[in-house]
Amino acid sequence: MNEFGLIERLKVFQNLSPEVPVGIGDDAAVLRLDARRYQLLTTDMLVEDVHFTRDVLPRQVGYKAMACSISDIAAMGGLPQTAVISIGVPGNIRQGYILQIYKGLHTCARAFGVSLVGGDTVRAPKFVINVALLGQVEKKYLVLRSGARPGDSIFVTGPLGGSLRSGRHLRFIPRVKEARFLVAHFKPGAMMDISDGLAGDLGHILRASRVGACLQEQAVPCYPGVNTRQALTDGEDFELLFTLTPAQSARLAARGPLSPLAACRCIGTITADCGRLLLQGADGRCRRLAARGFVHF
Amino acid sequence: MNEFGLIERLKVFQNLSPEVPVGIGDDAAVLRLDARRYQLLTTDMLVEDVHFTRDVLPRQVGYKAMACSISDIAAMGGLPQTAVISIGVPGNIRQGYILQIYKGLHTCARAFGVSLVGGDTVRAPKFVINVALLGQVEKKYLVLRSGARPGDSIFVTGPLGGSLRSGRHLRFIPRVKEARFLVAHFKPGAMMDISDGLAGDLGHILRASRVGACLQEQAVPCYPGVNTRQALTDGEDFELLFTLTPAQSARLAARGPLSPLAACRCIGTITADCGRLLLQGADGRCRRLAARGFVHF
Repeated sequence: MNEFGLIERLKVFQNLSPEVPVGIGDDAAVLRLDARRYQLLTTDMLVEDVHFTRDVLPRQVGYKAMACSISDIAAMGGLPQTAVISIGVPGNIRQGYILQIYKGLHTCARAFGVSLVGGDTVRAPKFVINVALLGQVEKKYLVLRSGARPGDSIFVTGPLGGSLRSGRHLRFIPRVKEARFLVAHFKPGAMMDISDGLAGDLGHILRASRVGACLQEQAVPCYPGVNTRQALTDGEDFELLFTLTPAQSARLAARGPLSPLAACRCIGTITADCGRLLLQGADGRCRRLAARGFVHF
Repeated sequence: MNEFGLIERLKVFQNLSPEVPVGIGDDAAVLRLDARRYQLLTTDMLVEDVHFTRDVLPRQVGYKAMACSISDIAAMGGLPQTAVISIGVPGNIRQGYILQIYKGLHTCARAFGVSLVGGDTVRAPKFVINVALLGQVEKKYLVLRSGARPGDSIFVTGPLGGSLRSGRHLRFIPRVKEARFLVAHFKPGAMMDISDGLAGDLGHILRASRVGACLQEQAVPCYPGVNTRQALTDGEDFELLFTLTPAQSARLAARGPLSPLAACRCIGTITADCGRLLLQGADGRCRRLAARGFVHF
């Protein structure tokens, strides 16, 4: 069993209604709100010794938990709004530690205009933090994973790789500003956040859109000290991955250095070769990449 | 440190806005929706070896996780609508076990008109299930914990006690039908669901409403084989606890045997003696009760 096989099987349990245009399988669920807007709903669980260890500062754990959920809302083109927090607390924990986790949650929430409105606190053998986050998106700005088309260019909002090793995964900035600027000025075909690694997450877009992709090895932006292979497979970057038509892509290329999208890089092209992910090296030769990233289990 | 002290301290971290009329400290958070309705948002975490053990059927665990959240929405007078599920899964678990948990979640969700629209599945040392549930309530039907007034009668929707011992906590029916009938035909002052025990949960209403209460020992409805002390303190009954003015209380007393509120019992009266909870015995003598129920830690 792995996570993605399980998610496919769990889809039989979603009982969607006309109130729920998009359910399981995107960064957030899409709910009907009014004539102009959708509501977005996402949930993310962080578990001690799986996603963080006790030697990480509790403020950073709280910050990350909130930032992961905010990133999911950004990936749909939306604005985050309201969160409820569940925390499972081991018996040997001081209250100060829990308050520091909340401080981190709160710092990140406030920075992105999110109201913390409630929660549940229970006993647990290991620390568990769950953030359920509501957001909104104008109907015309909603971006799913399923809208990539052959010929589209593929972009990332910033450099990739080494996030876990460098500790960047604890202090990353969810790309809300970039996503909102993007949907307001362009029309991305598909978008998601990179949490399990570029290759694996691009695979989700390819499957959802029934297309293939060819990435340019030289074009993938890497953090200093990170090689392309790491940039392709390391998890927890939380940059956005999106596609634009060639015409829009040319318009993005003409942006100025002060644009919120200044750090965006074009890394390849969507192809009609459904499910196939290719990597073209500096020598022009293509090799096939496994569209697979970090598998949670 | 205990849970309720912690919840008080966590209130400093809520950054409420005009969009959030009621935050931390009620059964669910209340969010602005439109001129006529509020949205309700609640989150509940169940942890293996704290709230259930591996020898409970996974379908029952799933059912209970969903039912607890639905009960929170009912306690506000609302209708549950949309849920997202996070599950933490130990390494040694078969996929069938997880699917059975989802089957339980789904069975309960469908029975109460709830759409399962998404989730998160992660590795964890012990099973953890978090249900985040959205609901709605007409503004005129919203019931908080803070509206009990001296002279009001106190009701429960059914018999109490022995829920954990009897296994009833795994198959209880959230009181949505009762709550909806109640808010449509009466005007309850305060309401909540009994999860930590009658005495403790009534204490929450007394503190939120700045009132006291006197319970009639003989009037507290007990499950067969359960004594009054157990009915007062056992947790996980998930019946609703609510207050009505004397006039409305007389009207409720005149209900027929087929009313959805047929099982409701008047168990006492709200007093002006802020925070004081009394129990009046068959002999007419009053003794003080600790307004304290199950403390999670």
